[in-house]
Amino acid sequence: MSQDLTDPSAEPNTDPIAIARELIRCRSVTPDEGGALTYLLRLLTDAGFDAEIVRFSEDGTDDVDNLYARIGSGGPHLTFAGHTDVVPAGEESRWTHPPFAAEIAGGALYGRGAVDMKGAVACFAAAVLDFLKTEGTPKGSISFLITGDEEGVSINGTRKLLAWAKERGERFDHALVGEPTNPNRLGDMIKIGRRGSLSGTITITGKQGHSAYPHLANNPTRGLEKVLHALYAEPLDSGTHEFDPSTLEVTSVDTGNPAFNVIPAQVRLNFNSRFNNLHTAKSLQVLIEKHVASALEGTGLTGRVAFVPNAAEAFLTEAGDIAALLSETIEAETGRKPDYSTTGGTSDARYIKDYCPVIEFGLVGQTMHQVDEHVAIADLKALTAIYRRFLTRYFERFGG
Amino acid sequence: MSQDLTDPSAEPNTDPIAIARELIRCRSVTPDEGGALTYLLRLLTDAGFDAEIVRFSEDGTDDVDNLYARIGSGGPHLTFAGHTDVVPAGEESRWTHPPFAAEIAGGALYGRGAVDMKGAVACFAAAVLDFLKTEGTPKGSISFLITGDEEGVSINGTRKLLAWAKERGERFDHALVGEPTNPNRLGDMIKIGRRGSLSGTITITGKQGHSAYPHLANNPTRGLEKVLHALYAEPLDSGTHEFDPSTLEVTSVDTGNPAFNVIPAQVRLNFNSRFNNLHTAKSLQVLIEKHVASALEGTGLTGRVAFVPNAAEAFLTEAGDIAALLSETIEAETGRKPDYSTTGGTSDARYIKDYCPVIEFGLVGQTMHQVDEHVAIADLKALTAIYRRFLTRYFERFGG
Ligand SMILES: [Zn+2]
Ligand SMILES: [Zn+2]
Repeated sequence: MSQDLTDPSAEPNTDPIAIARELIRCRSVTPDEGGALTYLLRLLTDAGFDAEIVRFSEDGTDDVDNLYARIGSGGPHLTFAGHTDVVPAGEESRWTHPPFAAEIAGGALYGRGAVDMKGAVACFAAAVLDFLKTEGTPKGSISFLITGDEEGVSINGTRKLLAWAKERGERFDHALVGEPTNPNRLGDMIKIGRRGSLSGTITITGKQGHSAYPHLANNPTRGLEKVLHALYAEPLDSGTHEFDPSTLEVTSVDTGNPAFNVIPAQVRLNFNSRFNNLHTAKSLQVLIEKHVASALEGTGLTGRVAFVPNAAEAFLTEAGDIAALLSETIEAETGRKPDYSTTGGTSDARYIKDYCPVIEFGLVGQTMHQVDEHVAIADLKALTAIYRRFLTRYFERFGG
Repeated sequence: MSQDLTDPSAEPNTDPIAIARELIRCRSVTPDEGGALTYLLRLLTDAGFDAEIVRFSEDGTDDVDNLYARIGSGGPHLTFAGHTDVVPAGEESRWTHPPFAAEIAGGALYGRGAVDMKGAVACFAAAVLDFLKTEGTPKGSISFLITGDEEGVSINGTRKLLAWAKERGERFDHALVGEPTNPNRLGDMIKIGRRGSLSGTITITGKQGHSAYPHLANNPTRGLEKVLHALYAEPLDSGTHEFDPSTLEVTSVDTGNPAFNVIPAQVRLNFNSRFNNLHTAKSLQVLIEKHVASALEGTGLTGRVAFVPNAAEAFLTEAGDIAALLSETIEAETGRKPDYSTTGGTSDARYIKDYCPVIEFGLVGQTMHQVDEHVAIADLKALTAIYRRFLTRYFERFGG
């Protein structure tokens, strides 16, 4: 049984629940804009923001919409980065509450994107609108960097939006990313960096032949054993104070040879490494190529490594002071002192870190990308309160 | 430029070249009979054989024709085993001489099956017809066990034909298989046994997960390394006087996981072993299962081995005396003393050896299964002469 817990007397533009419901009702399955960005554009423009939809495409096809909105002038300039695109809902009949209906039940708001991350976008928008209403134009700038291409290939999203903003003279002092960072409860975790990610394919080539005459062939699966050993034998490192140990996992090994009486010519192996700041994508590439070459030395087999372009570099934020400020704010609102963490996957913070210090704090990630994704109404309210208090403190601390 | 070297004055039924050409012109691509068996039926019936087409099927579908023909009564009973089905010709435009035209050029007869093994069937038929014409009905029996299902799945071929023959009271004293046994020149090699062949699939199962959280998954490719090591680390044996060392080759490793950010749940590995008579299919199965189990011990991964049914057992013929007789005959005709060998793939001899001692001798295998398969006219004549002389000696030696 659903019930509408939204307070009808609240002004819609400072109610995070109302904003989140509007956003969830937009079918913005990546890379479709689905009305989410135009809704935000109107909301922010009405509140005095200078906002525009920025459209990018690769080769002139597959346009993706993004939003840039700014209020205030000069520094300090805090930008909030996020996305309104969502992963597909899957089979909608499996959802207890339809994925784009934004139904409220049992104290939670259901819908695709509720936690990743329309909910956090709504919280930050509500916090900013309340800040503007109660404190007026900030002594500095607040902006929104919202992409419609985070869950997809991420080619026409944050990376291009940042370059576009730089081109037109935008300078950021700090960035806050609203991805779901909390494993269990709101206040668990701030992300102060991310591991990097490097993927690639190793192709081992030998000589095809008949299984009955292996001496006339050179079986690449013998090299496969040696390459797997080289990749798995020694850990990449044992971690640092801020980072877990780097990992490397082979994700697929494929030959595609259905004939039992044929020794194949090639076997391919895909891998993915999540690495900390003891490495760079480049240093790992060199290491992996060295491993493959020495594993196959003297076998007569050849190994070729092709890396997937645009590897994510590991980074650790330089925003120690705003991390501390955010941590204090979270503790004040929730009673929990958040961990500083660098765990998990990659996020668009990997692009932002080249422009300004960046930290990440959002909702509880447990149901993200799943059927019946939902967020506690209480969490939406609490995250709004955290963002709201953080805005005040941010300008107190960094304002002139 | 093609030319017809067939002597038009020769009686067609004792001319191996004419018989071979008739057989090659039949499009008996496995499992189609293509007219080849009915041609042989007529040829042998005309010469006094009691012959019939024997049709087998699995589940009442996909009938395959075979031929059984016998002349004489009582023992010694020499059966000649072979096949008239051929592998597909592939792209016919790549052939210098059309694969079913049986053209003669440069002293060679071209066509699919020229060496494997319509040529040898023609040679034995020509030799037998000449024997009957010059020496009359043998003091014993001569038969043909000709299948149309050797190059395919071999379900409705020699194995069933042997069981059918036994059922109707046929007893064989010796079998001669006409597969191409000579690597380079006619007279190089008699096969006195064959290695066995065992194939199977090892499925290693772990736990799927996200590449960014490998500690929550259990990557089966780590078990793959250990299983490959177990299979490849130690040779199965070092061979015997008659046999090469047994081999085991992994022929395919497959995962089918396109996502670099997903650790797969399973990886599958196909293998094929060619083994000598130090092993049986059963003893190898036990060994492989033991290897997989100990490789995965303590990893939390599970390994399951599924063996392909109907493994071929290794065998060594008991036909030492007819091997010697054939060897002497070959040496007398070619000046070459053939090697006794057990190399190469499997043949239908693996089924025949359960009924009577079996040896194999046929043409030169170099062009078998290839484009422009061809046989030297001189080899067809020489093999006919070897078979012809062997028939006389066989009945002199074993006849009452
Ligand atoms: Zn997200
Ligand atoms: Zn054959």
